[in-house]
Amino acid sequence: MTFTDKRVTEFLDLLACKDPTPGGGSGAALGGALAAALVSMVCNLTIGKKGYEDVEPTMQDLLARSEALRAALPRLLEDDTQVYGRVMEAHRLPRKTDEQKAARQQAMQAALRAATEVPLAIAERCAQVVDLALPAAEHGNQWAVSDAGVGALLAEASVHAALLNVSINLSGIEDSAFLQEVRRRMETITAGRDETKARVLEVVHRKIGA
Amino acid sequence: MTFTDKRVTEFLDLLACKDPTPGGGSGAALGGALAAALVSMVCNLTIGKKGYEDVEPTMQDLLARSEALRAALPRLLEDDTQVYGRVMEAHRLPRKTDEQKAARQQAMQAALRAATEVPLAIAERCAQVVDLALPAAEHGNQWAVSDAGVGALLAEASVHAALLNVSINLSGIEDSAFLQEVRRRMETITAGRDETKARVLEVVHRKIGA
Repeated sequence: MTFTDKRVTEFLDLLACKDPTPGGGSGAALGGALAAALVSMVCNLTIGKKGYEDVEPTMQDLLARSEALRAALPRLLEDDTQVYGRVMEAHRLPRKTDEQKAARQQAMQAALRAATEVPLAIAERCAQVVDLALPAAEHGNQWAVSDAGVGALLAEASVHAALLNVSINLSGIEDSAFLQEVRRRMETITAGRDETKARVLEVVHRKIGA
Repeated sequence: MTFTDKRVTEFLDLLACKDPTPGGGSGAALGGALAAALVSMVCNLTIGKKGYEDVEPTMQDLLARSEALRAALPRLLEDDTQVYGRVMEAHRLPRKTDEQKAARQQAMQAALRAATEVPLAIAERCAQVVDLALPAAEHGNQWAVSDAGVGALLAEASVHAALLNVSINLSGIEDSAFLQEVRRRMETITAGRDETKARVLEVVHRKIGA
């Protein structure tokens, strides 16, 4: 049984308990999934609605993208709990002989790279959700514009939340080419996302007149 | 059956579908509940841990508070779906005679006030979670410090998300004393919260050396 097969209340219990998985990486993935679901809701409240015929193709395209992200993020949530286990396993490997030390070191490096890749993928998906919230707010059903705003807020916070889980692994990684590539991807993920969130909120405030 | 009794994947389906409840207010409540659960996890990973004996009373107190918020927010999520229904019901009341118009107007005003109170209560609880994330990051188990950071990020985003759901109702409310009181509470809720989140992230980055 996967974590996202659990009831919401049970998932919260598992998150709160002293078992380290699910942890912050899973919280970020679920935050992003909630945000993607809200973008989808805005699309679903717009498609087929009188007065929104012109934006229907845009909304259909948007919905396909948000639904893909809503499917990907719960899978990444499960992956995140797996890769943490791999780091713990590598940590427990024997280190008496030089050979054991070398094998353990190699296993640790592979596990840390995997534990970096997953939250990085979560952050990338969440950043895509931020981007989708903008056309949802601009063109979607006016009555659901605040839901696009909530989507942008939760997705943008989840980007940073996931990146914290990338950062905690970086100090242990020795492969400098890998580190450089990760840092490059982190920059791409964050570049302009705060501004996009701010633009979404501008649209929301304008439309709700607040 | 309540929404938080549903499986996580089902909850996401319900959020994404074209039924307007659960919507953004529920997303904010769940974002806050995830954040509270992460603060609780930091406490649970600290209490009874060697080297953290001195902070044990602080952590016990913190845990009691975060668990109270983790219990309150899913209840508010359900309440949020209820009050939306009340607004829709009032909207559908007959308005042929003057008496009907007056009764409908009164019902609308009461429903809008309730639909304002619930997300305001959600925002207040989320703001309290932001505040709890700071001592969790400062004094909690060093290995879980990023989880406190994720908690601060999700809780602070959820504050603003819930307040969007307050704002959408304000333009329809006529009771100026109520409006003034709501605006005062909104100011209290947001004052300094962004700074607290930034302080949490400072502590996290210092401790993880990133």
